[in-house]
Amino acid sequence: MLNNVEFGDRVVVEAFTNLYGCSIRDGTHIGPFVEIQRGAQIGKNCKIQSHTFICEGVEIEDEVFIGHGVIFVNDKFPRATRADGDLQTDEDWLLLSTTVRRRAAIGSGAVILGGVTIGEGALIGAGAVITKDAAAGDTIIGNPGRPLLPPT
Amino acid sequence: MLNNVEFGDRVVVEAFTNLYGCSIRDGTHIGPFVEIQRGAQIGKNCKIQSHTFICEGVEIEDEVFIGHGVIFVNDKFPRATRADGDLQTDEDWLLLSTTVRRRAAIGSGAVILGGVTIGEGALIGAGAVITKDAAAGDTIIGNPGRPLLPPT
Amino acid sequence: MLNNVEFGDRVVVEAFTNLYGCSIRDGTHIGPFVEIQRGAQIGKNCKIQSHTFICEGVEIEDEVFIGHGVIFVNDKFPRATRADGDLQTDEDWLLLSTTVRRRAAIGSGAVILGGVTIGEGALIGAGAVITKDAAAGDTIIGNPGRPLLPPT
Repeated sequence: MLNNVEFGDRVVVEAFTNLYGCSIRDGTHIGPFVEIQRGAQIGKNCKIQSHTFICEGVEIEDEVFIGHGVIFVNDKFPRATRADGDLQTDEDWLLLSTTVRRRAAIGSGAVILGGVTIGEGALIGAGAVITKDAAAGDTIIGNPGRPLLPPT
Repeated sequence: MLNNVEFGDRVVVEAFTNLYGCSIRDGTHIGPFVEIQRGAQIGKNCKIQSHTFICEGVEIEDEVFIGHGVIFVNDKFPRATRADGDLQTDEDWLLLSTTVRRRAAIGSGAVILGGVTIGEGALIGAGAVITKDAAAGDTIIGNPGRPLLPPT
Repeated sequence: MLNNVEFGDRVVVEAFTNLYGCSIRDGTHIGPFVEIQRGAQIGKNCKIQSHTFICEGVEIEDEVFIGHGVIFVNDKFPRATRADGDLQTDEDWLLLSTTVRRRAAIGSGAVILGGVTIGEGALIGAGAVITKDAAAGDTIIGNPGRPLLPPT
């Protein structure tokens, strides 16, 4: 399902995707079983692999690698309903923004909490849960994610 | 694919879902790439987000939030085949039941092992692996999941 | 989407799958929302559950259980682009091979890094992140995965 998506040139989108209201720039590849929500921005020459979910509030710069089954989050206290029991609407929650800087790579199965910045060229290990900013060039692993220090 | 699903009123089901033999009550929203198996029960005014898997043996009460890529488990020792090498059938395993109580919220990417109860209003952190009961109102994070204590 | 898949007898493939260039032997069951890439080999009488991703370089022997949302990895330093900014191609990365031996079981939500061997009959816990070999018969849990020792 493609609905109101702004595509650059040479974008490839595989089968079984749900993209709406987002922008995807030149040369980027989107794998199967991917959802990208309204307002998300994907840069040039990125790879977004299968089973990944990119929510509103996420900006991905150029040449970023997003592995398989990566999940972004944009709310800190998710709830289905308001205190009065009605379903929440867009007015009932605070959107947290996330930025993934140029040439960063996010390993498969990682979960990226809302409100963080993944620095330029940073590498997020497979299965990591990222709860705070990752500095440029750092490698982050684990749950919660911590920098992998070089052996001394 | 919708097969033998019991729907309440005002249920919304998005594209690319696989629901069979389950019940989904009034006002609940089911995202894309969701599978819900036979016998699972989903309450009123819930949000079940994309890429989530809800298995047989799971009961979700009213006003529950289930994030993206949440996975429920219902067996402790999964195997493909019996000792004689034939594929297992329903008689070859013990079903563990799981209950998610009213107004609980399960963060994206969480894995919920079989046989646990998530208490009323509890919050499961994104990426947590839940191996035992969560008390009502508690916040649980990490792998394995542990209560997040308030700062003292 | 089924493209150039070598099937054995009595293989079952559910809806919403993306299988290409792989081989799947007799009696194996493939759930919905599964992707299996070229060159992957799946043995006889396996169960591959929903939302799972099996990449190039993975060999799965007979009677293996792969849970829901399991993700295999085959590269250690993923990048979208080469140093010159062009998208990477198959020549630009080192493929790491992974083997899952006979009658092993991989719990739902596990992430299996590239280059490891999961021994015969080993059990990988739900949500574990596997970074090194699992010995035959061992149970491995956590992030990073460690053997679960029997109580002494």
